[in-house]
Amino acid sequence: MTGFDLGRREISIEEIEELARKYRTWGKWGADDELGSANFVTSKTIAAAAGLIRRGDSFALALPLGASGPQQGTGRVNPQRVTLVGASDPVPGYPRQGFTDDAVYMPLQCATQWDGLCHAFFDGETHNGRGVDSVTSRGGAQFNSITNFVGRATGRGVLLDIPRFLGRDSLAPGECIQADLLQACASAQEVEVGRADFVLVRTGHLADVRRSGSWGDYAGGSAPGLGVSAASFFCPREVTAVATDTWGVEVRPYETSKMIAPLHVVMLMNAGIYFGEMWDMESLAEDCARDGVYEFFLTAQPLSVTGAVGSPVTPIAIK
Amino acid sequence: MTGFDLGRREISIEEIEELARKYRTWGKWGADDELGSANFVTSKTIAAAAGLIRRGDSFALALPLGASGPQQGTGRVNPQRVTLVGASDPVPGYPRQGFTDDAVYMPLQCATQWDGLCHAFFDGETHNGRGVDSVTSRGGAQFNSITNFVGRATGRGVLLDIPRFLGRDSLAPGECIQADLLQACASAQEVEVGRADFVLVRTGHLADVRRSGSWGDYAGGSAPGLGVSAASFFCPREVTAVATDTWGVEVRPYETSKMIAPLHVVMLMNAGIYFGEMWDMESLAEDCARDGVYEFFLTAQPLSVTGAVGSPVTPIAIK
Amino acid sequence: MTGFDLGRREISIEEIEELARKYRTWGKWGADDELGSANFVTSKTIAAAAGLIRRGDSFALALPLGASGPQQGTGRVNPQRVTLVGASDPVPGYPRQGFTDDAVYMPLQCATQWDGLCHAFFDGETHNGRGVDSVTSRGGAQFNSITNFVGRATGRGVLLDIPRFLGRDSLAPGECIQADLLQACASAQEVEVGRADFVLVRTGHLADVRRSGSWGDYAGGSAPGLGVSAASFFCPREVTAVATDTWGVEVRPYETSKMIAPLHVVMLMNAGIYFGEMWDMESLAEDCARDGVYEFFLTAQPLSVTGAVGSPVTPIAIK
Amino acid sequence: MTGFDLGRREISIEEIEELARKYRTWGKWGADDELGSANFVTSKTIAAAAGLIRRGDSFALALPLGASGPQQGTGRVNPQRVTLVGASDPVPGYPRQGFTDDAVYMPLQCATQWDGLCHAFFDGETHNGRGVDSVTSRGGAQFNSITNFVGRATGRGVLLDIPRFLGRDSLAPGECIQADLLQACASAQEVEVGRADFVLVRTGHLADVRRSGSWGDYAGGSAPGLGVSAASFFCPREVTAVATDTWGVEVRPYETSKMIAPLHVVMLMNAGIYFGEMWDMESLAEDCARDGVYEFFLTAQPLSVTGAVGSPVTPIAIK
Repeated sequence: MTGFDLGRREISIEEIEELARKYRTWGKWGADDELGSANFVTSKTIAAAAGLIRRGDSFALALPLGASGPQQGTGRVNPQRVTLVGASDPVPGYPRQGFTDDAVYMPLQCATQWDGLCHAFFDGETHNGRGVDSVTSRGGAQFNSITNFVGRATGRGVLLDIPRFLGRDSLAPGECIQADLLQACASAQEVEVGRADFVLVRTGHLADVRRSGSWGDYAGGSAPGLGVSAASFFCPREVTAVATDTWGVEVRPYETSKMIAPLHVVMLMNAGIYFGEMWDMESLAEDCARDGVYEFFLTAQPLSVTGAVGSPVTPIAIK
Repeated sequence: MTGFDLGRREISIEEIEELARKYRTWGKWGADDELGSANFVTSKTIAAAAGLIRRGDSFALALPLGASGPQQGTGRVNPQRVTLVGASDPVPGYPRQGFTDDAVYMPLQCATQWDGLCHAFFDGETHNGRGVDSVTSRGGAQFNSITNFVGRATGRGVLLDIPRFLGRDSLAPGECIQADLLQACASAQEVEVGRADFVLVRTGHLADVRRSGSWGDYAGGSAPGLGVSAASFFCPREVTAVATDTWGVEVRPYETSKMIAPLHVVMLMNAGIYFGEMWDMESLAEDCARDGVYEFFLTAQPLSVTGAVGSPVTPIAIK
Repeated sequence: MTGFDLGRREISIEEIEELARKYRTWGKWGADDELGSANFVTSKTIAAAAGLIRRGDSFALALPLGASGPQQGTGRVNPQRVTLVGASDPVPGYPRQGFTDDAVYMPLQCATQWDGLCHAFFDGETHNGRGVDSVTSRGGAQFNSITNFVGRATGRGVLLDIPRFLGRDSLAPGECIQADLLQACASAQEVEVGRADFVLVRTGHLADVRRSGSWGDYAGGSAPGLGVSAASFFCPREVTAVATDTWGVEVRPYETSKMIAPLHVVMLMNAGIYFGEMWDMESLAEDCARDGVYEFFLTAQPLSVTGAVGSPVTPIAIK
Repeated sequence: MTGFDLGRREISIEEIEELARKYRTWGKWGADDELGSANFVTSKTIAAAAGLIRRGDSFALALPLGASGPQQGTGRVNPQRVTLVGASDPVPGYPRQGFTDDAVYMPLQCATQWDGLCHAFFDGETHNGRGVDSVTSRGGAQFNSITNFVGRATGRGVLLDIPRFLGRDSLAPGECIQADLLQACASAQEVEVGRADFVLVRTGHLADVRRSGSWGDYAGGSAPGLGVSAASFFCPREVTAVATDTWGVEVRPYETSKMIAPLHVVMLMNAGIYFGEMWDMESLAEDCARDGVYEFFLTAQPLSVTGAVGSPVTPIAIK
């Protein structure tokens, strides 16, 4: 497959702000809404998605949460599992018994995760016009916490396997997936992307990094990803979520030097579309390539950490 | 409904050890098995469970993971969400932007959770005969980690609503659910419990505590729960998991003074049946009472914390 | 000893603001100063303090940092020591050896501690006029971190044992220590409080709580402590620090309903005097009562946690 | 200065075991002793050390506890300071006020630290013959916790500045400091090392790493350090503690392939001498070189974390 421009474009901040306004859903579900595109999820969409379970094959899309994770020294750390009670710790009065117990310290966005709608702010505002005081240090998100997604993070999943569509192993850092490529890939895979969908966009970057044997700058470095025009593919289709196998959904470096994470601003905080990051789609993608079926049942409930702005997640796709 | 003896019995340690041996599945799936009753989960059981999704109504069964949780000063603490980046923190070079981030310190078994098979040891052994060296402090579970359940924690859920069956609001601390009561309740609810099922046993204790406005000794105190004979209901039926709305599945005080958590020994570490604890079944139970349907699709993936012996979970039931 | 009014007074916010302005040291040591009254500490004051070491008897003034600590369910938690490597964990290749290791999750102000100057803000300002942006969530204190105190938290310690002076075991919650009482106590103990001193004010409240066998609301409840007029005792004397055996230095409830922690505003963030909280002065106080010497060498270095606004500390008094 | 062999020697495990037995102090202070060489610290040694404070100049010897620390991806992480309450977080009812608060997750041995006597085990034993059950995962050290050192970590400090004595900037990784070099350095510096001393051995390795601008493998890699024969210098002199500016006191690679950390076994767990690691002696060493005085007052209290096997510390030397 050829003819797609994977180059980044330099986009003005005005253009991005215009897109943000255009796809903004603030107020669409009321002044108090904290769900955003999770509003598209209904009993009907869930029941329909259940119809996609045919063979019952289940694919877990989570990276291990441990020392082998992608955080390599800058910013967040990998999850730190620690021991509370060991196997040989005595149980007073019951010398034949033992009970193990452990704990974890972890940044909530350190591996396979959901971004909550309030992860991004622009001009002091986030989803539905909430100000910076809507996320305090003491309590975390007073509004728009990722916990609102609990119970609604279920529906039809669609995989757009970009490198396979292009006949390649993977996209390279800096290569950019625009709206036309998303559309062409969906058409070739014979899936239509629509309302309440959870769209998984595979770049092959995670597989690349894995093959290399080292995470390198996977967390926070250059990466393939969505270009800004992807917003005009996803937003009008009213999807609920978009996830990638990269650290931050978007192409890096970004398509503008005037702001960072422009798609987070347009799609996450303005359109209210949830972003999934660092999802491991490799075995799912192989299965889809095998049977040619790129849609499935998907469920990916956040942890219900009160006030959290993001959450680790163990997404499951079932075909 | 009357005629059920809810009293605890004093059971000898020999009797419990005999039950443990009787229902032991060690070796059943090979010397290297770490899955236990998760082996019963197959594509077929998952596909069949998907057939139980009719209306698409989704019920989240997790308690909030926060300061309002059940840990009240003894043993584990409630989850501590902490802020890594606040909404007003500057993004260097991008004064109009903000990105929030948070982290958590939490015991992995502090609220709605799964016990891994290696949570319990007896005579220095846990599931499949692994010794105490199979769970180290440094790396956690080298075998039988709860992460083995990832991707298999999906199937048919069955709710056994014991207090509703008995015409009561809840069971009282110390009241004991034995095999005959489980059978009678299932029959009355017109469900058969079978292989690969995830059985949710409601005691009403969580609702009681909630009504009281205080957790009191919910975590670690007296509670209604399963009696030892429950093993002879669940084990032969080859269920995958049993969850309750109590802290520890079993009736407390236990039915023996000679050991603690006897059902953990019999069912969890010997039979290899996963235990779910502190599951909030209240709205699901109301729905089941309304439509008379006590079976549903259930998915409850653990976090993939490397080496974890237990895991917080956001279980979802879909009817 | 009688004749001292231990009652709280209702003080207007204007009066407190006037005191804050009166004792404000902002600019005194330059616009960039982050040390406040730690500027009074010099080689000379340290050398002089060393002269107070006569017998070489050392008194540790720290509470244990563990589950038995004063945090009982509201706000901060007690320190959570967790195990990284256990004594029986294998050392690969060296079966005869073992190395233990542990970690801690702890609020930095959960037990015996120092408040940094930037712990308190009023009208968006803290010590030396720094704004709220001087303490970010991401990096913590960009200015006025408690780490500035490292190396300077040494000098002459003076104990003012208020209840012993009054012929009582302890002060009661709500009882208030004013300037006249401080002066009278110092005179009776034959110590003069002066520049660069570390003044330990004992209320007996910690001993009371210990005798009771339960922390109760020691952390955040009613307590004896300093009244607002204490500022006019300490500030003109140019002390470096004031510590008490209570949770928050000040009498609680406060002497005003219009603000909280008025002395933190006057003395800590305006005068730049460090506050030590939850210091255990019991054995030191007994020794002072025995030999009649109420001055000593004191050293109490904070942990050097980058960006910290407060710090746990193990203060040592040596006589 | 020349003529010193800095090469590592291959030492047999039998020789090390013999040294361990030779210098073992188990039982010396009773079967219940948990203090080891801290028993040498008395009022007298502290009072004498106070006499070394002349000018009152204070030197803090701690590395910052933060993201810039020496832990670079293997084993322990650097301290994670996190925000509990931010400067702009509202104080309900008091809009003009703010109070900041933070917490830390940190391995207790991740930077400038003390090893507790029970940090090392050999043949299932640690200081004073305690078995592996003396350090449990649940409670940590039941015996020999570093908290026993609180109040006794004070005394005469002696700096042995090995590279300056040798006329070099620093020792190279793998270079070994043996007993003869320690003795010659002390003689040249005109200090005698003796009972209850806290001996700081400078290798210059920390300065080297700092100059290089990168920690590299400072934590856990090759390093200069003490050779096994150092035990025969320190143990007979009955010092209380030995600290270095390296990660692990000992030369690395070790002088034997048959065990790891042989000096930890001989000096820490058998002789009961406390080990200080990652102490930053640079400004102190410059001062000593300037005035030719290599002895001083030193105080370095551990945190009182209940059950801790090691502790971060902010050591202070005062001359």
